[in-house]
Order: sequence, then C-alpha cells, then structure tokens
Amino acid sequence: MSKANADALLAGNRVTLANYEARHFGWSVANKVATITLNRPERKNPLTFESYAELRDLFRQLAYATDVKAVVIHGAGENFCSGGDVHDIIAPLIDLPMPELLLFTRMTGDLVKAMRHCPQPVIAAVDGVCAGAGAILAMASDMRLSTARSKLAFLFSRVGLAGCDMGACAILPRIIGQGRAAELLFTGRSASGDEGYAWGFYNRLCEPAELLEEAQKLAADLVAGPTFAHGITKKMLHQEWSMSIDEAIESEAQAQAICMSTRDFERAYQAFAAKSRPVFEGD
Amino acid sequence: MSKANADALLAGNRVTLANYEARHFGWSVANKVATITLNRPERKNPLTFESYAELRDLFRQLAYATDVKAVVIHGAGENFCSGGDVHDIIAPLIDLPMPELLLFTRMTGDLVKAMRHCPQPVIAAVDGVCAGAGAILAMASDMRLSTARSKLAFLFSRVGLAGCDMGACAILPRIIGQGRAAELLFTGRSASGDEGYAWGFYNRLCEPAELLEEAQKLAADLVAGPTFAHGITKKMLHQEWSMSIDEAIESEAQAQAICMSTRDFERAYQAFAAKSRPVFEGD
Amino acid sequence: MSKANADALLAGNRVTLANYEARHFGWSVANKVATITLNRPERKNPLTFESYAELRDLFRQLAYATDVKAVVIHGAGENFCSGGDVHDIIAPLIDLPMPELLLFTRMTGDLVKAMRHCPQPVIAAVDGVCAGAGAILAMASDMRLSTARSKLAFLFSRVGLAGCDMGACAILPRIIGQGRAAELLFTGRSASGDEGYAWGFYNRLCEPAELLEEAQKLAADLVAGPTFAHGITKKMLHQEWSMSIDEAIESEAQAQAICMSTRDFERAYQAFAAKSRPVFEGD
Repeated sequence: MSKANADALLAGNRVTLANYEARHFGWSVANKVATITLNRPERKNPLTFESYAELRDLFRQLAYATDVKAVVIHGAGENFCSGGDVHDIIAPLIDLPMPELLLFTRMTGDLVKAMRHCPQPVIAAVDGVCAGAGAILAMASDMRLSTARSKLAFLFSRVGLAGCDMGACAILPRIIGQGRAAELLFTGRSASGDEGYAWGFYNRLCEPAELLEEAQKLAADLVAGPTFAHGITKKMLHQEWSMSIDEAIESEAQAQAICMSTRDFERAYQAFAAKSRPVFEGD
Repeated sequence: MSKANADALLAGNRVTLANYEARHFGWSVANKVATITLNRPERKNPLTFESYAELRDLFRQLAYATDVKAVVIHGAGENFCSGGDVHDIIAPLIDLPMPELLLFTRMTGDLVKAMRHCPQPVIAAVDGVCAGAGAILAMASDMRLSTARSKLAFLFSRVGLAGCDMGACAILPRIIGQGRAAELLFTGRSASGDEGYAWGFYNRLCEPAELLEEAQKLAADLVAGPTFAHGITKKMLHQEWSMSIDEAIESEAQAQAICMSTRDFERAYQAFAAKSRPVFEGD
Repeated sequence: MSKANADALLAGNRVTLANYEARHFGWSVANKVATITLNRPERKNPLTFESYAELRDLFRQLAYATDVKAVVIHGAGENFCSGGDVHDIIAPLIDLPMPELLLFTRMTGDLVKAMRHCPQPVIAAVDGVCAGAGAILAMASDMRLSTARSKLAFLFSRVGLAGCDMGACAILPRIIGQGRAAELLFTGRSASGDEGYAWGFYNRLCEPAELLEEAQKLAADLVAGPTFAHGITKKMLHQEWSMSIDEAIESEAQAQAICMSTRDFERAYQAFAAKSRPVFEGD
C-alpha cells in the first residue's frame, strides 16, 4: 500500500478525543484513561434525551480513538445514575406515537451497542443509586466496581414497563444467572452491594472514598497491557455470545493468530527472555 | 375493527380459570394468584402420566387466562415433588416401543414449554424432596423460594437415564453455571437449600411454615404490578436465549416500545406526578 | 444386520486404550478410569507442541474407547499446568508466518473440541499453578476439583495476547458469569481456590494430599453409573449450547427416548423393584 493510501485509510479511522468537549456530562482523559462523569448530582445524575444521544455518539467515536484505551464511567456526588429522568424523558414519552417511541428505545439500545462495540474495556464505578437506565449502563460495562452501600435496581416494572430494556433480558442473566436476573427484572427490587458482589455483578467492593481511584487504577493497568489484544478480547466476548462451542473455538483460533502477529506479543517474549517487564505499545 | 370482529378475536383468546376443576392436583385462584398443589403427599407428590398431561394442558390454557396473573406451584405435606412415579411411569416405560417413548418425553418437554410460554410468572415454593421431574418443574419456573432443609436432585442418572430431561442441559447451566450443572446432572447428587441459594437456584430461603405464604406474597406483588409488561419480560427472557447481543437489543427496543404504548405506563407516570402509588390494571 | 457387517461396524469404531503408551505425559487406566498426568514437574508441567498434539489425538481416540469411561487429568508435583512452555512454544511462535500460527491455534482449539466431543466425563484435579493453557484444560473439563492453595490465571494478556484462547471467551462466562470472566481474561490476574469455588469454577475444594484420590473416586462413581447415558448428557450439554429453549427441549425429548431404550434403564427399574442397587453395564 502506498504511503498516500495508508494515510487515507488511517484518516478515516483515527480520531483523538482527549480534547473532546462534552456538553451533557463530564469528560476527561489522562494517560489514555477516559473518565465519564454523569454530573447532575442534585437529581442523582439522571439521563436525558441529550445525554443518551451524546453518550451513544461518543462511544461510537471511541472505536476510532487513538488516545483512549480504557473508559471509566461514574456519577458525581454519591450516586451513579438514577436512570431516565422522569420529567425530561418519561413525561414526553407518554404521548409519543409509535415511530417516535421506537426511535427512543432504539437510541437507548444503540448506546449499549456502542459500549459493546468500542474496543476499550469500560469500567463502571458504582456508588449509591444505580437504577433503571443507570443499572443498564453498569450492566453494559465490561467490569463493575462498587460500594457496600450501593443500590442496584432494574426498576422498569415500577414505571409500568417490561424488564427488557437495552438488552437486560439477554445480558443480565449471563452475568448473575437466569433466576436472579428474573427476580430483579420482574420485581424491580433493589440489590445491595453485598448481593451484587456475591452474584458476580460487581467484581469488587471498595470504600466510597476510594472507588473512583480504584476504577481508574484498574483502567490504567489495562492501558499498560496489550491494548490491541484487549480490543480483540472484548470483540470475542461479544461475538461468541450465541455461537456454538465449535464455532467459538475456530473463531478464537483465528483471533488469537491475529494477536500472535502483533509486536506486543514479541515484546512480551523479548522482555521474558531479558528477565524484564514488557512495555506494551498497543500494536 | 368492528365490535363484532373484536369480540370474535377476544372470544378465541380469552378464558377464565378460577373455576377450573383440576383432577390430578390441587388448583385454587385468589386475587389473580393461582396455586397449584401437587397433592399425593403419602408418595411425596410424584407425577403421573395423567398429571403431566393435565399440567401441560393447563399451562397452555394459562396463555389465554384473564383471571390469573401469577402462578405458585408447591407440594402438599413437607415435600415438593419426587418426580415421575416409579410404579405409574417408569414401570410402563420399560417395555414401550420408540414412538411411545418419544410421545412421553415430548409430553414432559411440552409441559416445560407451556410453563415458559404462558405470560404469568411462575414461582416454585420448594420444601423437602425436589427430585427428578420435580427438580425440573422448579427449574422451569421463573423464580424459586425454598427452605434450608430442601433436597434438590436431578437424579436421572440414578435410574439409568441421561441428565438431558425436559431442557435441563440447556436451562440449568444458565441458572447455576455450567460446572455446577454438570455435576448435578452427571452425579444425580442432592443439593441442600444453602447450596441452591448460594448458586442462585433459589431466590430466597424461608422458614418451612412461611414458605407458601411468602411465595403467594411475591406472586401478589407481581399481580399488583404491570402484568402485561411482566408477560413481555417473560417472553423476552425466553426469546433472547440464543440471540446475539445486537439482535437482543433491537428486539428489546421493539418490545419496550410496545410497553410504552400501554395505559399502565401512563398510569405510572400520572401517579408519580401526583405523588401517589400507581394502580396498574394490566393493559 | 449380518454378523459380519456388525463386526465391521464395531471394528471401525472400537479401540482399547488401557495399554496406550503415552510419550509426552503419564497415562494409566484402572477400572475404566483413565488418569492423565502432566509430568514435567520441574517446570510446573508446561505443554509443548508435542504434548498438545498427543493430547488432541488421544482425546479423539477416546470417542471409540471401550475400556475407558471417565478421565481424570492432573499434574505431577504440586502444580496442575503452567501452560504453553515459553521456550518450547512461545519462542518459536514469534517468527512464524500466519498459516503456521493458525495451524498452532487450531491445534490447541482442536484439543478442547476433542475434550468436549469424547463421551467420557473429564475431571480436572487442580492443585498449585493452573495458568494459561493449563487454565483452559481445567475449563474444558466437565468438572473440577481443586485445593485452597491453587492459583488459576488466564494470563494471556500478560504475554501480549487476547483472552480468546481455545474457547475461553465462550466457555468461561458460562461457568463463572460474564463479569468475572471478563475480569480474569482482561487482567490475567490469579484467582484463589476459594474464589474459584465460590464462583462455581471448582465443584469442590480438597486437601492437597487427597485431591487426586477424590477426583478418581468421583470418576469411579461415574463409571459405576449408566455410562452410555453419561455420554448423552455430555453430548447434550455441548449440543444445546446455542439452541433456543424450544429446540433444546425437543432435542432432549429425542435424546432421553434413546436412553429409555437402553438396558441400563431397565436394569435400574428391575433393581428398584427388587429393592437392590442397580448394576449398570453401559449399554
């Protein structure tokens, strides 16, 4: 491929996001770790039509980002997210005709799709209220840290809706088991931090004061790893969801052969041979 | 649609079951909660050809019931169900030709299908022995309450059969994990109430004396909720089982848009605006 | 079928493996329980190109074995397996062209396929280090016994690779849940015996001195059971992985009808009628 052609390929598939100016939530990037802060703490950080759309578009852009290799999402104040705002979202939905209702539910679903399709591991740092669409954001992340005092509630049934919101009936059972997921989705009840940890929803419980820092530390550790390979791990966790075992194994044989052709694989071996720690560069 | 046509549509799809007279088990309906009582306590409530068929037909009818919105299934005495009766089922099976064997295994499988296809959440209240096809009935329910002293056993291997009975190799791993399911299905060993709870098979352990009441209370809470939406939740938990994540998300966007067109969704919002509790009516 | 034809059918589908002479690991058979011993304890029992290929070929032969009805796999010394040998495997991989890389990853994947396709239940006895491809061997087994001191690590990311190795992104989430699997695969961190047990990766923790014996005892119990039916259980656990619930139930109706046509099913009933213990013969 000519240099000009290579440049053209990269130009259409590379962006930088460190200086992205978010309008509806906080956004900062440090050492390739991006932090998204849901920041309307006086209302426990609800989502709005605008923040849904902006989050969807930003996660789609992350697929091309060269300067972000992991994402932390958390809430300002002592809560994660209270879900779709009753005044800003539920009220207007009441009178919408079907095409616009589907426009809305597809937008929210597209946010989850974008979170699953970007190559960066997404870590949710969950304190306090984590409800409705907030619970979905945590569920749609790759890993979840939380606090003992957190309250997780898929409370859709409380507002007259079904538990099948943004992928919950597919994804939640695979995280915590079908029986526990059914209970949370039918009843809308709150689950404590201890329950969420025992069930495998949370990977770890932290002190509230250390939660964000621990999530960012975990993200930084991933950024120091082979980030191209991490993106393949994430893709395959997504891709093999409904494959047969035999199909999954062949897909992994191909995907891992790709990773064995990367410089990071060679770097790891050279570091091992030199009895040093590998320095991965993501290519 | 003309009134006559609407009536014709409803006539073919609506039944009432409060006065259904069950022949092979107990059946009662109170406040839209149906209770099925497996009631041959002197034999630990085994299933027979007749009770299988009647349960299958009844769960199929529940798809059209207007007066039952949740189902509790439990056993008389201090046991849930000992499975297929050795004398009434296993003995006659020994000499059957293949087409009749398949007739039997399809009948038992059709009971599980009917339990999964009816829109009502099904809650198993499991005390004492819960074995063989009894364990399957509990597994095929949406939620399970139990007691510490309960004994769960998928004991098919003990009678010379495989663990793949009525969906167990597909459903049990998604409730308790593939490794634990493999052990129970290969060995046929008993699992205690504590194990079942730790694994997510049981949603909660209760005192034996309070078990049925707690299950009926949970059912009553669901009946007080948006029952049309509950039916959609159940359908999607079933429907998304082997979909890809992206397919599941689109399916949920459509399913939730349907629920946003219901009066119960509006009732929830109006109640919120009025600072009162919503009264759902299931439409 | 004529006797000659029947003999021809059996000849092509029956082997005995009790006297198989393994070259790259230990192999012994006692009372139809085979024990595979990974036996380079000075290096914590790493895998090599040769041992991968021999294990793959042996598990493929097990599909036809008449004298092996369960398999135990463990490591010599106080470790299970340290994975692919850095010198013997990783070093040569560094410079291989893509077709040979894929040859290697398909060989490793074919080992997992062979472990899943043979009818014998495979029990891993995991002490000490269980890392990389060693962790995969444990994961690809049907059941796993371990010790509190064991260290499980899917450490692919530590050597610059992705977590999608030999089926891990498909299989591990179904054993321990999607969130815990994501953490282990992204970070490569070690999980303790207690964690693995709480998550359902291990079926039981044993004292190190009793681990192998307990695994062989579990295998012997399975061998005393209906081994043809066990093979059907294993096949269906594999086969139903990505089926819908309705498809799985029909598949089980067929599979169980096959088992009801076996002599072991009749033996179980006759023993019950005679108030004795059934003696299963695997046909």
